[in-house]
Amino acid sequence: MNFAERFAADRELVEKALGAVFRGCPPHADLYDAMNYSLLAGGKRLRPILTLECSRLCGGTDVHALSLACAVEMIHTYSLIHDDLPCMDNDDLRRGKPTNHMVYGEATAVLAGDGLLTAAFETALGAGAYLPAGQVTQALELLACAAGPAGMVGGQALDMAGEGHALTLSDVEELQKLKTGALISAAAELGVVAAGGSEAQRKAVRTYAQKLGLAFQIRDDMLDVAGDQDSLGKSVGSDVRAEKTTFVTLKGLEECGNMVERLTDEAIAALSIFADPWFLEELARAMVGRTN
Amino acid sequence: MNFAERFAADRELVEKALGAVFRGCPPHADLYDAMNYSLLAGGKRLRPILTLECSRLCGGTDVHALSLACAVEMIHTYSLIHDDLPCMDNDDLRRGKPTNHMVYGEATAVLAGDGLLTAAFETALGAGAYLPAGQVTQALELLACAAGPAGMVGGQALDMAGEGHALTLSDVEELQKLKTGALISAAAELGVVAAGGSEAQRKAVRTYAQKLGLAFQIRDDMLDVAGDQDSLGKSVGSDVRAEKTTFVTLKGLEECGNMVERLTDEAIAALSIFADPWFLEELARAMVGRTN
Repeated sequence: MNFAERFAADRELVEKALGAVFRGCPPHADLYDAMNYSLLAGGKRLRPILTLECSRLCGGTDVHALSLACAVEMIHTYSLIHDDLPCMDNDDLRRGKPTNHMVYGEATAVLAGDGLLTAAFETALGAGAYLPAGQVTQALELLACAAGPAGMVGGQALDMAGEGHALTLSDVEELQKLKTGALISAAAELGVVAAGGSEAQRKAVRTYAQKLGLAFQIRDDMLDVAGDQDSLGKSVGSDVRAEKTTFVTLKGLEECGNMVERLTDEAIAALSIFADPWFLEELARAMVGRTN
Repeated sequence: MNFAERFAADRELVEKALGAVFRGCPPHADLYDAMNYSLLAGGKRLRPILTLECSRLCGGTDVHALSLACAVEMIHTYSLIHDDLPCMDNDDLRRGKPTNHMVYGEATAVLAGDGLLTAAFETALGAGAYLPAGQVTQALELLACAAGPAGMVGGQALDMAGEGHALTLSDVEELQKLKTGALISAAAELGVVAAGGSEAQRKAVRTYAQKLGLAFQIRDDMLDVAGDQDSLGKSVGSDVRAEKTTFVTLKGLEECGNMVERLTDEAIAALSIFADPWFLEELARAMVGRTN
């Protein structure tokens, strides 16, 4: 199986598991429809694939990692729904489809986000069917810490506060580390926890994911300037409109390209403790040239 | 110690623990201020007091129950912040103070709610310092299930969908059971879990809390019609303005008063397996005549 085939197979596994999360749930008005609308809207599934692959790298089986992988994607999805709200980034388009609040209204979109976030913890607790309770609480600590005020929510608050202000490179790096880096890093570490891996393995995938996450964000900023709306499935130029300081406004497109390549090399180097991390290596390389 | 003294002492214990939740945290723009603004805005602290008291009733010590008690109140607080948003109930006043979004703006209020919800799980995980991991995951399951789409968030979705529509008594009961009942019931059960109590004890406090929660909601509806804004610390008449079907619009004030008394008796009866549940008995009785 080559990289593209393996990625597609992982993605299918994730899609299937996500599709089952709310299956058979009683309908409460539009709530479940709204949660599923965003949860099953496609996307790269980078985070849950990281969880699965890091688990495999440490000898874990997929069934042990899958509920944690879904939980990470549910948290990512809730954050997109809330970030797109009129009072936040006010975006109409996400993954080529109207954003959640455009379809279901603001009130339901707020609740769909709240519901996905809470259900993510329920889903993660489902890992208790396979893992000892101590591993489950470790996983939940990782998840809550990465998603909360000291992680993703804190990063989004910094992002909102930074609009229209001049930020330095270290401001933008700190913001990225919290807003997107923390959850990507947790996704990778969760795989190691699911597999019962070692502290050294956790550290290695954490470093890999931090570098990957930063490269991913820089590439995101580049695509917002130089990308194509159709292949991205979301509006381009939104950073400029919101007067955001980005890696591109600070460093320019060419230097950003160099940074992405350097970070990719560093991400791959962090995997040296593993015998055959080819998939994660390819995944990092795929970030350099991605167009969506 | 009489009821009022014990209630005040419990409340002080809770206030102190809540005040410590975000102490020493790095400030991310207004986020921590906004979370603390609502978390430390007073309130009856009914839910965390239920957790503490149910734990004591089962022989638990406060230190084992306190982080679970705080987690419940954090979830309750996040739900108030989001419920008050312009796109939801659009309320300006809460506990006698301007609502979160009136002070910090809508974007920060959404994030403050998200942050409190996520941090609630982190706080609950803190119980792992005292309890075996299996008890902690049990507690988190209770919490997530009561707060999520099959509990509180689902109830709020039903509430929004019901505005302007005629609901039956059983619709309103189902709505209440999810929107406020589930978390009140979980608060009580969490105390039993913290104390390592029995299944019979869990069932008894669950029944007690379900009856109490329903009585509480009916009394709430009564106060929205017949209450005093100053002693309530929130606007009255909001249900009428939102064209909500309530227990009062369905049954009238007098019959609602009878229902509250009947439910209080049933709540107290559920405690018969305990040797001396005097505090919880008094607590239920205090609901009948409450004015705030």
